[in-house]
Amino acid sequence: MRPLFRDAPWAPLSYDPLADRPREDCAVFGILGTADAAAHTALGLHALQHRGQEATGIVAHDGDRFIAHRDQGHVGDVFSSPRVMDRLVGDAAIGHNRYSTTGESNPRNVQPLFAELNLGGVAIAHNGNLTNAATLRQDLIRQGAIFQSTTDTEVILHLMARGSGRMVDRLVEALTEVVGAYSLVLLTRQKLVGVRDPHGVRPLVLGRLGDAHILASESCAFDIIGAELVRDVEPGEMVVITREGIESFRPFRPVAPRPCLFEYVYFARPDSIMAGKSVHEVRKAIGRELAAEAPADADIVVPVPDSGVPAALGYAEGAGLPFDLGIIRNHYVGRTFIEPTNEIRHLGVRLKHNANRAVLAGKRVVLIDDSIVRGTTSLKIVKMVRDAGASEVHMRIASPPIRYPCFYGIDTPTRAELLASRMGVEGMASYIDADSLAFVSLDGLYRALGEPGRDPANPRYLDHYFTGEYPIPLVDEEGGTRARQLTLLREAG
Amino acid sequence: MRPLFRDAPWAPLSYDPLADRPREDCAVFGILGTADAAAHTALGLHALQHRGQEATGIVAHDGDRFIAHRDQGHVGDVFSSPRVMDRLVGDAAIGHNRYSTTGESNPRNVQPLFAELNLGGVAIAHNGNLTNAATLRQDLIRQGAIFQSTTDTEVILHLMARGSGRMVDRLVEALTEVVGAYSLVLLTRQKLVGVRDPHGVRPLVLGRLGDAHILASESCAFDIIGAELVRDVEPGEMVVITREGIESFRPFRPVAPRPCLFEYVYFARPDSIMAGKSVHEVRKAIGRELAAEAPADADIVVPVPDSGVPAALGYAEGAGLPFDLGIIRNHYVGRTFIEPTNEIRHLGVRLKHNANRAVLAGKRVVLIDDSIVRGTTSLKIVKMVRDAGASEVHMRIASPPIRYPCFYGIDTPTRAELLASRMGVEGMASYIDADSLAFVSLDGLYRALGEPGRDPANPRYLDHYFTGEYPIPLVDEEGGTRARQLTLLREAG
Amino acid sequence: MRPLFRDAPWAPLSYDPLADRPREDCAVFGILGTADAAAHTALGLHALQHRGQEATGIVAHDGDRFIAHRDQGHVGDVFSSPRVMDRLVGDAAIGHNRYSTTGESNPRNVQPLFAELNLGGVAIAHNGNLTNAATLRQDLIRQGAIFQSTTDTEVILHLMARGSGRMVDRLVEALTEVVGAYSLVLLTRQKLVGVRDPHGVRPLVLGRLGDAHILASESCAFDIIGAELVRDVEPGEMVVITREGIESFRPFRPVAPRPCLFEYVYFARPDSIMAGKSVHEVRKAIGRELAAEAPADADIVVPVPDSGVPAALGYAEGAGLPFDLGIIRNHYVGRTFIEPTNEIRHLGVRLKHNANRAVLAGKRVVLIDDSIVRGTTSLKIVKMVRDAGASEVHMRIASPPIRYPCFYGIDTPTRAELLASRMGVEGMASYIDADSLAFVSLDGLYRALGEPGRDPANPRYLDHYFTGEYPIPLVDEEGGTRARQLTLLREAG
Amino acid sequence: MRPLFRDAPWAPLSYDPLADRPREDCAVFGILGTADAAAHTALGLHALQHRGQEATGIVAHDGDRFIAHRDQGHVGDVFSSPRVMDRLVGDAAIGHNRYSTTGESNPRNVQPLFAELNLGGVAIAHNGNLTNAATLRQDLIRQGAIFQSTTDTEVILHLMARGSGRMVDRLVEALTEVVGAYSLVLLTRQKLVGVRDPHGVRPLVLGRLGDAHILASESCAFDIIGAELVRDVEPGEMVVITREGIESFRPFRPVAPRPCLFEYVYFARPDSIMAGKSVHEVRKAIGRELAAEAPADADIVVPVPDSGVPAALGYAEGAGLPFDLGIIRNHYVGRTFIEPTNEIRHLGVRLKHNANRAVLAGKRVVLIDDSIVRGTTSLKIVKMVRDAGASEVHMRIASPPIRYPCFYGIDTPTRAELLASRMGVEGMASYIDADSLAFVSLDGLYRALGEPGRDPANPRYLDHYFTGEYPIPLVDEEGGTRARQLTLLREAG
Repeated sequence: MRPLFRDAPWAPLSYDPLADRPREDCAVFGILGTADAAAHTALGLHALQHRGQEATGIVAHDGDRFIAHRDQGHVGDVFSSPRVMDRLVGDAAIGHNRYSTTGESNPRNVQPLFAELNLGGVAIAHNGNLTNAATLRQDLIRQGAIFQSTTDTEVILHLMARGSGRMVDRLVEALTEVVGAYSLVLLTRQKLVGVRDPHGVRPLVLGRLGDAHILASESCAFDIIGAELVRDVEPGEMVVITREGIESFRPFRPVAPRPCLFEYVYFARPDSIMAGKSVHEVRKAIGRELAAEAPADADIVVPVPDSGVPAALGYAEGAGLPFDLGIIRNHYVGRTFIEPTNEIRHLGVRLKHNANRAVLAGKRVVLIDDSIVRGTTSLKIVKMVRDAGASEVHMRIASPPIRYPCFYGIDTPTRAELLASRMGVEGMASYIDADSLAFVSLDGLYRALGEPGRDPANPRYLDHYFTGEYPIPLVDEEGGTRARQLTLLREAG
Repeated sequence: MRPLFRDAPWAPLSYDPLADRPREDCAVFGILGTADAAAHTALGLHALQHRGQEATGIVAHDGDRFIAHRDQGHVGDVFSSPRVMDRLVGDAAIGHNRYSTTGESNPRNVQPLFAELNLGGVAIAHNGNLTNAATLRQDLIRQGAIFQSTTDTEVILHLMARGSGRMVDRLVEALTEVVGAYSLVLLTRQKLVGVRDPHGVRPLVLGRLGDAHILASESCAFDIIGAELVRDVEPGEMVVITREGIESFRPFRPVAPRPCLFEYVYFARPDSIMAGKSVHEVRKAIGRELAAEAPADADIVVPVPDSGVPAALGYAEGAGLPFDLGIIRNHYVGRTFIEPTNEIRHLGVRLKHNANRAVLAGKRVVLIDDSIVRGTTSLKIVKMVRDAGASEVHMRIASPPIRYPCFYGIDTPTRAELLASRMGVEGMASYIDADSLAFVSLDGLYRALGEPGRDPANPRYLDHYFTGEYPIPLVDEEGGTRARQLTLLREAG
Repeated sequence: MRPLFRDAPWAPLSYDPLADRPREDCAVFGILGTADAAAHTALGLHALQHRGQEATGIVAHDGDRFIAHRDQGHVGDVFSSPRVMDRLVGDAAIGHNRYSTTGESNPRNVQPLFAELNLGGVAIAHNGNLTNAATLRQDLIRQGAIFQSTTDTEVILHLMARGSGRMVDRLVEALTEVVGAYSLVLLTRQKLVGVRDPHGVRPLVLGRLGDAHILASESCAFDIIGAELVRDVEPGEMVVITREGIESFRPFRPVAPRPCLFEYVYFARPDSIMAGKSVHEVRKAIGRELAAEAPADADIVVPVPDSGVPAALGYAEGAGLPFDLGIIRNHYVGRTFIEPTNEIRHLGVRLKHNANRAVLAGKRVVLIDDSIVRGTTSLKIVKMVRDAGASEVHMRIASPPIRYPCFYGIDTPTRAELLASRMGVEGMASYIDADSLAFVSLDGLYRALGEPGRDPANPRYLDHYFTGEYPIPLVDEEGGTRARQLTLLREAG
Repeated sequence: MRPLFRDAPWAPLSYDPLADRPREDCAVFGILGTADAAAHTALGLHALQHRGQEATGIVAHDGDRFIAHRDQGHVGDVFSSPRVMDRLVGDAAIGHNRYSTTGESNPRNVQPLFAELNLGGVAIAHNGNLTNAATLRQDLIRQGAIFQSTTDTEVILHLMARGSGRMVDRLVEALTEVVGAYSLVLLTRQKLVGVRDPHGVRPLVLGRLGDAHILASESCAFDIIGAELVRDVEPGEMVVITREGIESFRPFRPVAPRPCLFEYVYFARPDSIMAGKSVHEVRKAIGRELAAEAPADADIVVPVPDSGVPAALGYAEGAGLPFDLGIIRNHYVGRTFIEPTNEIRHLGVRLKHNANRAVLAGKRVVLIDDSIVRGTTSLKIVKMVRDAGASEVHMRIASPPIRYPCFYGIDTPTRAELLASRMGVEGMASYIDADSLAFVSLDGLYRALGEPGRDPANPRYLDHYFTGEYPIPLVDEEGGTRARQLTLLREAG
């Protein structure tokens, strides 16, 4: 996932390697029932590129065999070759985008993973993070399993391989053993399966294009191919799609759903509809809440692009202040950067953002961003806005202070690195050198989502980053088994 | 240049090869007087990436020799290797970005060009287009010159090579022979020279960073390295920068300046300051003019991102209507595309833009774009907005109808392909299926730039795209010599 | 393995895809006890490049972790980057070269394979072919194993993973279940293990460099790093090398050794010493046998380079005829070929070999080659020699007629494609258009190896290609299980 | 050219950059009158790969336009893509291979060069070296010429560009101004021209394939496409080939021909026929001369492969000693090497050659090589042969001692680096640690070519490397103008 990495977009050399964990936000996509299933999948993955830019893969089934292509890079690059696409034939396919967490990533980790079971082949793509994967992995290795990747996802395949009964039964059986967050798509010779963990942490939506059924992390993946959103796959639901139709199951013991708040705050594309809500409209509502909770005596509302834009529109509307683009984003910032020499670094190089001086000079500015993680980005942006002549900078954040790390699929730094876990709001304001700083309240955030506020007895969303309450057990963290297991093989080069 | 290519961003296969002309909008940058001149240049070129994405190059001078690196690709890719940067040493450098005009571009055309004259080496980078280059080229070849590129720029080098006197004298001499639009930077062993044609068609600004003087196409290239904008290089001015200081010359017979209107409408980055005017503020002013000239009975103002955003802000302000992001741009659209099969193509795939349904559904929408060229993009965008539920779509364009091609450095299609040259505004509205369509008037555009309107006796800007008046003679076009000359050698592969 | 592929070196487009089997000749190397173990391994693999050019890999152990690098390509390319070599640290490493069998090879098959067992990690590299791998694989999958590759080698890892006891015990246990030919090297945290199947089909030699012990497929891999050959690893022997020393075990029930004859005839490098015999001298002795058995009334002895040279030297010596280089090899034939158009193909293009007309014109030529497989190469070479003016061409072959396919690690075509299984020697002579054709007898081949001849009751070498006697059971072939199992997943691109 | 570089094949890091001169041995090819002219050219260049491995290029003419493809790399790689070959259409083409002289070669130097003159386009490919190129270049730059490369060849194009009259007249005119060695092929819209300098230093042969006429550096380029050798282009001859036929001219004042001896000793492929002589047979004759002049009391004759093989065959025949392959060459040594660490380097790594111990042990060996340049290779080979157990090593060299550098197209080290210019034969024997050392005499070399010996009044071959007599004036060397001119622009990366 991205917001925490966003802290240091132009200082790759100061990027903290300790933050590189194998947990990531990702995208999944699956389709069954149309010719060119792989091409549809590639387009869907392209629309979901924001959920993972490091690597991407597709496994298609041509009625006889599974065909895979997986590589590092953007969807548009990995799936642009006719030679590749021509071989990915068939009316069923699943795909995956993976977020970049480390520089030396193992190509064997690129999803979808595939395994040949005695019942036939199965491919799997996963968004989320299992909290007992290392523990299960240790057990499985003890029983003689050989892992081909270091992903938590592979645990599910091994549990299925050892199971009995049919594919779908084995999947349910395997999932009763895992703990954590998952939205999965699986492809077998006959079926496309989508399943979302009982808490519904990560999103998964169901769509339709003619006779074809589609699964995707977000509805924007339907728009790109002209498909329609049918509904969300519900928390704890498993949908099984065959060439004959679609069935829904509820194989797990029901728990209160807890979808992740950060999908609304930052991850999801604004044009996606999640749980019936427009992400863009939720963000605008957060901005309005923020304007009500934390008004500022100012001349103008300016977003940190691009994720701050909807909240800034809402804040401006709520506050009755003009909205303007005071910071311009350079769209050509890619995967590589000009290597900063020491002479260059202290120039405060602005590879990604630039202040729009004409908008800011002499103005009292309300600056809207979606979140603060380490605070280093905010520090630089406030300085840039001041250097452009702003007379005052009032920072407003469209999420509460992030004080606790995530273990359910978001790649956060350790607690010690989270600015909000080290100091209060006033200290933070001083650290980032803002004239004032305010965060939307957790209740305000819930209100923007149509709730009356956060019900402590029954919170409706996953909000541990703000509260420290982890509703899903952190099995591996408590056992401390993870680190040792995953470092046995390193790929050089 | 881009706006006209923008018409077909998601239909590469229908891209008309006849539109591929060797005329382009480009970026230039030069610096003298700082260590790591090449790294500063690479950063400046990165900030100017929007002016040319096909190829980029730098020539540095280390006090003894010139060192060059030129390649196809983005600045961040071409100049990311330490191996490359380590060799580009010296306190002086110039650079160039080139716009992608054709698929089979010749690597020998990548600028800066370099020539070894009897006085020593000289490197040159050019933004603009010479209108008598083919004619001069023919003459020079007749006299025994051998061209290494098919660029018009090389003509200047050959004229300098044949001249007498010192470098700067030869440059002036050469420029008195050429006709057309040019903003040039040149690097010799001792000097960095910047020169802008007498009409000042293309921009060129002068900046300063400590002891170093800088030249760039736009001021945003100064911001990225923390340099300050000193002033525009004036139309017809030549600045000569040495390690001792800077001198200004006016070597040409003065004419009335005619800077290109399209820089304000579309090309320049909004955070750039040109001729003392903020591009962003000019675009907002155009939007206000448009609101006054062409109001619409509507609920919401929506820009076609990203270039329509400032005008939409201005229109919303002028019209007293809410502004919102009804179209979302996918930032990951790169140089490659998923190859559309026939089955995929008719889905109306949306690689680059998606409608934000929650914003648009049931609304009467004012849709703001910067220009209409062939009209094919507008047609698709209007359809997309309607499909998302808009009840009415009122298209408003932040420039007058483009009826005439450009020969001064913008890559336009032929007249026959320009929608506005084939039909009136009503026909266009019907063609793109808008409920109403209006363009800002040419007077309105001038007013947004602070003029009382366009003075037909003395127009202050270059506006032939709208009027058909070409103030600089089109020597080659009239002689019809171009096409034959430039096709003798094709590079395969 | 190569001889059978050699038939069509300049006609890649006529290459028969049915001949593409997953059985190959390969090279293994292992070293323990020296700094830069990986660099020594890379050099050793380079010396063994003739045994496999498709892909290569190294797994090193740095005392704490295993580090791997595996890629398609030649050793000199895959291991030329300092970035790669700098990470492959440690005093122990194993490596593998793989022969190119198909165009669409799966990168997950590149060896050494690695598995994390509950005892720790283990890497394995294999030369040979298991004849019950598909059967075992089916069983293992039925028990829940997930395979990461389609290689037979991985079966051994899974058997080890499921075993009990220590690593070496598990290896022995696993090997008692497999049937077939194997020379293996394994690397664990503590040990380097080499083991050769009871028949000793594929070679494996033991060497020493200072304190380091080395294992390699051939002794030429010792020469390149200045190491000395100690002795062959014996058929059925397992050597276990630790930092303390070396131990030898005989864990299998003894059988009569049957090393592969083709190693002497074709595979091994002439400068290698196998079982105490110089490969070069054996080949010369074959040539002398051939001269005695099949003399020719001729002027000159000419080898098909390079593999026919030693036998030709022996033949010339035996026959008292002059030896000369009548065919010149182009050393620049690489992995890619100029794509032959139809117009080009019928020219009989000679990408790899050319006749040396001055040597051949007007001469009665004895042409020496190592083997005939499909016969298509011989046909072209005889024609080339005739076109160069040879008055007579007497073909002499340094191995008996190949009538039966191999299942022990050599990639042969099916029986139907083997020329000698379709016709007698006279028919073959006529097919290849030679004035006479003779093969060395099987007894002659045994004599060249120092035997009195082939003892039918107790043949000393593996010679099923000539006799059809398969001493090691062909479990999968009889069960017919192979094909279905290995085609479930295809990698596109 | 290669022999002098051959001194250090496995020690790339000790390679002396001072030896990197812009003079090289190269290959040229041209064909007119067949469909697929470019494919024929690619095959011809492949057969001539030994004359240049760094870069290769083809310019074809399709009746209307010239199409070029030039790149660094081997012919088989550069011209393997259908995309490239499909565009190189036409019935006429010329091509060039370039020898690798430096690591940082400028892509603008890859031949054929192309220029658009007022008469139309002309492409040129050159083998040889002009000795007044730097002087002419300086003059031309003074007159305003702009050079696109740093090759001497481009001087000819500029002289042609400035000339008057028709293409062929201009070529003759240009060539009367240049001094040095050249075999050229040129392609214009109508004609394929081949010309060889009056001394005939570099070879050029004329061939025929059906209706097509062909020019090539060596006749082996005809064999690969099944074409026949017609005759040599004579020294001082110009052949002009059109679609109507072929004409021969003698435009230069006649001088006594002096073809380069080293073509026979080392450069040419053994299967080529030059001036009616088989290169292979000449080399064998040199070996016989050497046996007569410098017999050795020995057991065996061993060549340094591959270039020493024919002379060793001749020596063995002359001396009545057995010939054997005591040194084995690794055919997989490519362009990249395993980067030697300090720990690895002192192992005396043998990347390219290995001693064949079984052949050498206990033997008194006559070791045959083609030449000694710096002596470092000989030193290593003698040591390797001794280490393999040879009791005595008698080195015999198939050319006289090289004491003087070449300026006519061979890339030699400076005089100070030539071993034979620093010491006598006994000193050299001691330096390379041979039991005896002898070179063939210059008279012996002439005798091997069918002369009675060298006539000092009228030597028939170019032999300055041995004698220091330079028959073609060294204009630039005497003026000392070269170095300064060629270093103005360096390409980074």
